[in-house]
Amino acid sequence: MEFTHFNENGRAFMVNVSDKDETKRTAIARGKIKMRKETVDLIRDGLIKKGDVLAVAQVGGIMGVKRTSDLIPMCHNIFITGSDIKFNVLEEEIEIEATVSTIGKTGVEMEALTAVMTTALTIYDMCKAVDKDMIIDNVRLVKKTGGKSGDHIRES
Amino acid sequence: MEFTHFNENGRAFMVNVSDKDETKRTAIARGKIKMRKETVDLIRDGLIKKGDVLAVAQVGGIMGVKRTSDLIPMCHNIFITGSDIKFNVLEEEIEIEATVSTIGKTGVEMEALTAVMTTALTIYDMCKAVDKDMIIDNVRLVKKTGGKSGDHIRES
Amino acid sequence: MEFTHFNENGRAFMVNVSDKDETKRTAIARGKIKMRKETVDLIRDGLIKKGDVLAVAQVGGIMGVKRTSDLIPMCHNIFITGSDIKFNVLEEEIEIEATVSTIGKTGVEMEALTAVMTTALTIYDMCKAVDKDMIIDNVRLVKKTGGKSGDHIRES
Amino acid sequence: MEFTHFNENGRAFMVNVSDKDETKRTAIARGKIKMRKETVDLIRDGLIKKGDVLAVAQVGGIMGVKRTSDLIPMCHNIFITGSDIKFNVLEEEIEIEATVSTIGKTGVEMEALTAVMTTALTIYDMCKAVDKDMIIDNVRLVKKTGGKSGDHIRES
Amino acid sequence: MEFTHFNENGRAFMVNVSDKDETKRTAIARGKIKMRKETVDLIRDGLIKKGDVLAVAQVGGIMGVKRTSDLIPMCHNIFITGSDIKFNVLEEEIEIEATVSTIGKTGVEMEALTAVMTTALTIYDMCKAVDKDMIIDNVRLVKKTGGKSGDHIRES
Amino acid sequence: MEFTHFNENGRAFMVNVSDKDETKRTAIARGKIKMRKETVDLIRDGLIKKGDVLAVAQVGGIMGVKRTSDLIPMCHNIFITGSDIKFNVLEEEIEIEATVSTIGKTGVEMEALTAVMTTALTIYDMCKAVDKDMIIDNVRLVKKTGGKSGDHIRES
Repeated sequence: MEFTHFNENGRAFMVNVSDKDETKRTAIARGKIKMRKETVDLIRDGLIKKGDVLAVAQVGGIMGVKRTSDLIPMCHNIFITGSDIKFNVLEEEIEIEATVSTIGKTGVEMEALTAVMTTALTIYDMCKAVDKDMIIDNVRLVKKTGGKSGDHIRES
Repeated sequence: MEFTHFNENGRAFMVNVSDKDETKRTAIARGKIKMRKETVDLIRDGLIKKGDVLAVAQVGGIMGVKRTSDLIPMCHNIFITGSDIKFNVLEEEIEIEATVSTIGKTGVEMEALTAVMTTALTIYDMCKAVDKDMIIDNVRLVKKTGGKSGDHIRES
Repeated sequence: MEFTHFNENGRAFMVNVSDKDETKRTAIARGKIKMRKETVDLIRDGLIKKGDVLAVAQVGGIMGVKRTSDLIPMCHNIFITGSDIKFNVLEEEIEIEATVSTIGKTGVEMEALTAVMTTALTIYDMCKAVDKDMIIDNVRLVKKTGGKSGDHIRES
Repeated sequence: MEFTHFNENGRAFMVNVSDKDETKRTAIARGKIKMRKETVDLIRDGLIKKGDVLAVAQVGGIMGVKRTSDLIPMCHNIFITGSDIKFNVLEEEIEIEATVSTIGKTGVEMEALTAVMTTALTIYDMCKAVDKDMIIDNVRLVKKTGGKSGDHIRES
Repeated sequence: MEFTHFNENGRAFMVNVSDKDETKRTAIARGKIKMRKETVDLIRDGLIKKGDVLAVAQVGGIMGVKRTSDLIPMCHNIFITGSDIKFNVLEEEIEIEATVSTIGKTGVEMEALTAVMTTALTIYDMCKAVDKDMIIDNVRLVKKTGGKSGDHIRES
Repeated sequence: MEFTHFNENGRAFMVNVSDKDETKRTAIARGKIKMRKETVDLIRDGLIKKGDVLAVAQVGGIMGVKRTSDLIPMCHNIFITGSDIKFNVLEEEIEIEATVSTIGKTGVEMEALTAVMTTALTIYDMCKAVDKDMIIDNVRLVKKTGGKSGDHIRES
């Protein structure tokens, strides 16, 4: 078992996917941002009144999907066919789920993870004046479909 | 207590920092990426032989610092005066610490957190062919100095 | 009749076009920038002598096409197969027409409109030392071909 | 009277502002997007129910401010100290006003105009499935303060 | 014989490739950076000890491939299917070879040349504290395959 | 003598310039692109008739200056106060000279070199349909002023 992202000189390269099939692929990633109960309450207030933190985070996350190959050095640039973000507002944390799809030669795991990251960082930025102790946690791939390596579903 | 990033219409805006002093500021953020022992071993092998995952992640992280204001919608674009990333390779995880400094009117917390996230995502990308179950965890600000709100050190 | 760019939670998302056909698509957008007669005369002088404002604006506009999905939050990133810009220099205004084409799953209306905008803004920037009262006006889609919704031609 | 953006060979260049003073500067630009009454009604519904077009456009506009020097060829890259966008929803159009501030050697007129344009284009993108005949109109600088050339207020 | 990148008004445009076939294409470009023997020695030391200049340059070069259409005004944005960089460390110079591949309607010559340029500039940046007299030299396309104009191999 | 761009673990980092003085700095870089006499003739024809390759290359080069810190991994992002490009059209080559200035804590050598490279690549792109054997050559820093290390003028 070895890494695929290094050439024969031990240097990183962008793996050649020219001969891979174009298939429909999706990836779902999840993560959460933990914060004080008071901070969650302020966000929840914004949902029904004025000042929706999650609306801004949603836009940040979707735009982050499109910047993935700019950020991750060996990541292929690809055409994204769709992207969505969902939130689950709990008592002391907000769960984030990002879904990304493409028709292409490479998967969109990195795009989904980048979406979760950018969404979480945007929430952090919007709330940091009231809470500096937030933690971004448990960011992971939960499902991937399509491609030669087949579907992959995380058990927990 | 309320959010500072919304205008009187409840819409997000970039806070006006024109009248803030330019001061020397630093921020340190930390996080980790958890993975199988075998994956850590492969990374550790690369450090002494060929194929250094962390060298690529380091570059990804430093470049991520410079993209922060492109990614985070209400974040000010600023001149970064320095940035570094350190790793601590443990048995089943790699700890990441990013330090960012500036002389300016706004802090660099978001830049340090973005550095940790981009570094972790690059590690994920480089290792995902051998391990799809990695988790990015416990990403948080640990220290910030400079600026009107003063220094802030996380207790744990 | 309702917007297509919101998910079931009322949050914006990038519409999933995975199942759309790849077709040949074009879009033509037009707009104008109104300015003093003296400013138009200076631009016209540049065309035959030295200092061609429109050559710079043309390059700005073409490059703007490629930045469209970076700028417009829910816009898909796509492969542009061609792009051109034409000018019509009148007495107190310059008309701009941008044509963009692609083979893909989404239209290029936003790319054509962004081209007109970037072209007009570049003209503004190049001329603002002599005329601060220019107005960018009447920017609209005039024609679109290809795609499921069929061709669309603006009447006026 | 002549253009300042061309060198002695008649080619465009980025004007040297090294010797200019750093001053506090602001710029306000305005424009509107005209659309069918039904489209305005759908947007207005979103403000009170679900699916807020203007929240997305606001984020697009603020992020556009930070991309100005990427888009406009001869425009200096600068540190933006603040940016806000306001809307006025009328019967058949939405008025957009963008305010941008900086402390620096160059003005922020282009940033304010780019904000209006990106905001308007985002509204267009979000609404184009229901209305392809929207027009972006009357985009102009209405006020600028600071800098050697002094304040400038548009009369109408 | 004439240039293909100008429209009938003599202005640059992005050539329309809508009707071209999608074919597998590759391009190889080479160049070198000449420097003092002592500087090459320092780089060579880094390869076996700590501080690998070429690892950073490799990442810079691969990421440069993905920025090509952002940099070169009339260049199409395309999906890159693979990219690699090789070095040959000689006594007073380092040779750089970049290989880029795509499946698409346009060639990847510009991407390969941009990779060589970005790699060489990164080496320059990493070494400029010890050697300001480095020269980037002989950057050229050495091979291109695929596309209507057929294969092209440079003779020397 | 050793590299300054590596931390104590031998990994690349962005050098901390927080304590450096802000001074006025300039850098001049030069290079050339060699081509067939017939290609130079076509470019020269464009200067007086229609289709000015160098006008496009000039814009590409100036915009490249602003992308330098996006491209070069350890390069600081800075405020550019001015930038210009000059050409010297010879019989079988075109000489390119780029001048960049800033007021800041770091020099602009990389910006000037990036300008030359982007300008040369744009010329290559515009002419490659008629000449695939062009060579970008002798790209080097010729002068730098300002900063602690003082002025530096290349002898040849």
